[in-house]
Amino acid sequence: MKLARLGAQGSEIPVAVIGDRFIDLSSVVSDLDGSTLSPSRLAHLAEVVNSGGLPELVGAETLRIGAPVARPSALICIGMNYAAHAAESGSQPPEVPIVFLKTPNTVVGPNDPVDIPRQSRKTDWEVELGVVIGTRALYLDSPAAARAHIAGFLAANDLSEREFQLEVSGGQWSKGKSAPGFSPLGPWLVTADEIDSSDLRLRSWVNGEPRQDSNSADLIFDVDYVIWHLSQFLALEPGDVVLTGTPEGVALSGRFPYLRAGDVVEIEIEGLGRQRQVFGQA
Amino acid sequence: MKLARLGAQGSEIPVAVIGDRFIDLSSVVSDLDGSTLSPSRLAHLAEVVNSGGLPELVGAETLRIGAPVARPSALICIGMNYAAHAAESGSQPPEVPIVFLKTPNTVVGPNDPVDIPRQSRKTDWEVELGVVIGTRALYLDSPAAARAHIAGFLAANDLSEREFQLEVSGGQWSKGKSAPGFSPLGPWLVTADEIDSSDLRLRSWVNGEPRQDSNSADLIFDVDYVIWHLSQFLALEPGDVVLTGTPEGVALSGRFPYLRAGDVVEIEIEGLGRQRQVFGQA
Repeated sequence: MKLARLGAQGSEIPVAVIGDRFIDLSSVVSDLDGSTLSPSRLAHLAEVVNSGGLPELVGAETLRIGAPVARPSALICIGMNYAAHAAESGSQPPEVPIVFLKTPNTVVGPNDPVDIPRQSRKTDWEVELGVVIGTRALYLDSPAAARAHIAGFLAANDLSEREFQLEVSGGQWSKGKSAPGFSPLGPWLVTADEIDSSDLRLRSWVNGEPRQDSNSADLIFDVDYVIWHLSQFLALEPGDVVLTGTPEGVALSGRFPYLRAGDVVEIEIEGLGRQRQVFGQA
Repeated sequence: MKLARLGAQGSEIPVAVIGDRFIDLSSVVSDLDGSTLSPSRLAHLAEVVNSGGLPELVGAETLRIGAPVARPSALICIGMNYAAHAAESGSQPPEVPIVFLKTPNTVVGPNDPVDIPRQSRKTDWEVELGVVIGTRALYLDSPAAARAHIAGFLAANDLSEREFQLEVSGGQWSKGKSAPGFSPLGPWLVTADEIDSSDLRLRSWVNGEPRQDSNSADLIFDVDYVIWHLSQFLALEPGDVVLTGTPEGVALSGRFPYLRAGDVVEIEIEGLGRQRQVFGQA
């Protein structure tokens, strides 16, 4: 099932996307969030959708696309999880997953405009495979146990300000990861049964020129390992989003200029849709 | 005004604490959170309380004390903000505030039992002055402008697992900061008009033996500077909690043993009350 949230920020309507039709889920669930994303709730939702009794959302194609999950309680990120990106960042591949957090108020829709922060000279893009948690996960026994806690997957742009993150941070990255609008998510949340997270092409473009082009097969720590590992250190809550890391091809590499007002960033993950952000200046 | 939330986790009742009386605020506010903590809402609340028309909460002294603010959207921490603690941690005093995040689901009441995480060998205490945000703060003009965005202050224990934070983290601290129960807050939220945050004694004890004993006057970056600084990089939301850093006297110094099941940690901040956690084992 392909789920989305359509409408103005803060009053999005949950829908199922079937081909070019948008099925209005608002009579079944109040929103797409931690309370509605458990495997059993999603299975029930799929049944209701497949029964054909729900109406289409009129005028859906004219509505803003919101993040496909309402504001998570935590936005948890894995750093340096592709070897070639670690190398372009001047680092060795990590021996354990590196964990950092973004503030959840950075979450916006996939095509919302994003402002480059004041004082920023190094705003950078990062296409990432995002994992949406379906049920609370703490002290999982094995990576194999992770799968039952995953609601689905989404595309994410883990926007980053490299000077804030690396040069005026004392080494802790969150300062450069949490500006308003820095976590475009979506367009869709695709349920886990429809996605093979181990083989997804990830790409990004700036002003139409290709930047990143890799595959989730190259993740150093794969999705199941990441969820299992995180659960040893914190409780993942339903609706939380885990960003699994970005592949090579960002501006931090020195091969491309950082973003400026007027630039257009697009990202796409196979099966999870495409984003497009026009950048302004805060 | 001294505010608290009393009752079982998830169904706490908001109260004002006046001497040994607990005034039930539930007819005026649904909870103490971002929607109720703006200066104007707090001023209105104080008027209603002072009018004397609200009932006392019957049996209040028998109830569990919850965190005095409902789960924040972000729990933002400043690292190494006391010179002597930086030194005991093997670091130079920072030239800019170091920012890291804890997941908000770590927040618990001040006297709730806390489990030492599985595999932990280095669970440590950190008494900290916490700042509760009252109104959204982004790109503040100056540290002086910060004050208008502060609802009040609270005591916090920024519990930390040092091996998770420093040795198996790749250098990013959140992995050792986000175990369940790792952020006891309270007992009270004291409104900003009643607290001089520049001169508060902070203390901690383990099994009755003194550990930390310092004063917020020793903060490298004071409260107003921290809030102003953060607002240049992210949007602080009403109800968010900022922990301003811990003074010297933690186990990481090597002078004291790390915590074990059965240990009792107490922390106290002048004017903000006292916490007591009995440690178990996850």
